[in-house]
Amino acid sequence: MKFSLIPKEDKFFKLFDESAANIFKAAKLMKEMVDNYSEVESKAKEIFDAEFEGDRITHEIIRHLNKTFITPFDREDIYNLASKMDDILDLIEAATDRMLVYKIEEPTIECKKLVGIILRMTEVITWGVSNMKNLGHVYDHCIEINRLENEADRVTRDAIGRLFDEEKDPIAVIKWKELYEKLEDTTDSCEDVANILESVVLKNA
Amino acid sequence: MKFSLIPKEDKFFKLFDESAANIFKAAKLMKEMVDNYSEVESKAKEIFDAEFEGDRITHEIIRHLNKTFITPFDREDIYNLASKMDDILDLIEAATDRMLVYKIEEPTIECKKLVGIILRMTEVITWGVSNMKNLGHVYDHCIEINRLENEADRVTRDAIGRLFDEEKDPIAVIKWKELYEKLEDTTDSCEDVANILESVVLKNA
Amino acid sequence: MKFSLIPKEDKFFKLFDESAANIFKAAKLMKEMVDNYSEVESKAKEIFDAEFEGDRITHEIIRHLNKTFITPFDREDIYNLASKMDDILDLIEAATDRMLVYKIEEPTIECKKLVGIILRMTEVITWGVSNMKNLGHVYDHCIEINRLENEADRVTRDAIGRLFDEEKDPIAVIKWKELYEKLEDTTDSCEDVANILESVVLKNA
Repeated sequence: MKFSLIPKEDKFFKLFDESAANIFKAAKLMKEMVDNYSEVESKAKEIFDAEFEGDRITHEIIRHLNKTFITPFDREDIYNLASKMDDILDLIEAATDRMLVYKIEEPTIECKKLVGIILRMTEVITWGVSNMKNLGHVYDHCIEINRLENEADRVTRDAIGRLFDEEKDPIAVIKWKELYEKLEDTTDSCEDVANILESVVLKNA
Repeated sequence: MKFSLIPKEDKFFKLFDESAANIFKAAKLMKEMVDNYSEVESKAKEIFDAEFEGDRITHEIIRHLNKTFITPFDREDIYNLASKMDDILDLIEAATDRMLVYKIEEPTIECKKLVGIILRMTEVITWGVSNMKNLGHVYDHCIEINRLENEADRVTRDAIGRLFDEEKDPIAVIKWKELYEKLEDTTDSCEDVANILESVVLKNA
Repeated sequence: MKFSLIPKEDKFFKLFDESAANIFKAAKLMKEMVDNYSEVESKAKEIFDAEFEGDRITHEIIRHLNKTFITPFDREDIYNLASKMDDILDLIEAATDRMLVYKIEEPTIECKKLVGIILRMTEVITWGVSNMKNLGHVYDHCIEINRLENEADRVTRDAIGRLFDEEKDPIAVIKWKELYEKLEDTTDSCEDVANILESVVLKNA
């Protein structure tokens, strides 16, 4: 057993907390958008702003990494964590954008469910990231993320099944198939983040 | 020239052998399913069970990695090999699952060919993994995997060409295009595994 | 501040220059193909030859890496740079091949624009790679690549929007959607290469 080598105070943790809070905010905006599907353009705009802010935070983490000699945990894990957190936002933005480009008139029930799961996942990630420096509870968060990811898989599978069973317009099938896949990719990227958190905590336990 | 630093006996090799055997089993089940396309649900169920077992083995490798100080080869390569072997199973499962969700009535000739190539690739991977500790023959296995991957590319290309030439139902085009891509992704992930095996052997030669 | 540890002369730089020149050549061939869309098969053949040559260069870099003890920059970065440069060529080949397989009769205006952006990106990468050993100008190249990537995103978004607004044939939608995505993936892989170049230069500044 090693002592914990993770210092309690560190700029990296502050930046990761900021990044997680920003992702959670984007997921909340997306949930609000699909639940109250009006003034979609202006709601989407706020999500795009969050994605832009996320890029800024990611670049600040990378810049800070490049000029920091001793890091609170593996350089590679810091880099991967920042990249994968960025992927979540990119996918939230991409799904939102496709809803505009495809002129989606009303989100399906499965679309709302998936966005709800994404919201919960990003909430758990926010907890996980803020508990990373205490090395505690992260394992529980990861189990919860895994549970949510399995739920998302089931919802997506049912959504795709119903889409191919019921939708007769091939163009609508193409649009919704891609939307479901982008939302599922978002939940996968949340799981990637949870896996990195778990391995960071394990290595430093 | 360095001496081989890979010990002959090691829990990692045992686990990788288990993982490879399980992947080979899943590929055999898939081959049996597409060749005798009846009672598809129960055949698919066995493939899903193999995927579940694969997850267990992957987690055991990662857990073992996290508590092992001296590993038989690079930690990163162990991690990557375990992840990429897991990807093969995930893709075999995803392709199988899509055949159910899309209510495919009869696999095409190209689908059967691709599954046949996947079966041969997973067989070669089983040999490669079990020969990794002897540092021998792995290079030959990698050449064979490359040959099979090129064959899979050609079959997929012909399959997509024929699909767009002959199939007039756009929904069927969407379904089969995705199935062919998932099968080709499976062969790509087999090649990824072969590339990792090759680099591990080269580094420790 | 460290002194630059990157030697000015090195086989790796020579190989990366070769690789970049080959990618630039493939992009030029593709631009010529979409701008003068006749004798497409023989023009595509030249692109496939460039992709084949790219594989040879990539393998030579990996082989050289495996037998070189002291490398001019991080082994991992050399590996990643070689792989990501190879990805650009693979995607150029895949997009070209799809134009043949899908029997595309005439490239759209957005297709030509995207290929034009790819050509400029590969030109900038050629400069970036050849300036890597001087540690200079790479940052400017990366900014230019980012600008081009954002332009490609906008063009793709407009292309997909127009496709779904105007094209009534679902099969044509499937074909063009994939083509635009493959071209956009190509610009993404150019950005990946720029990001690696930037981090290599930052680490060794």
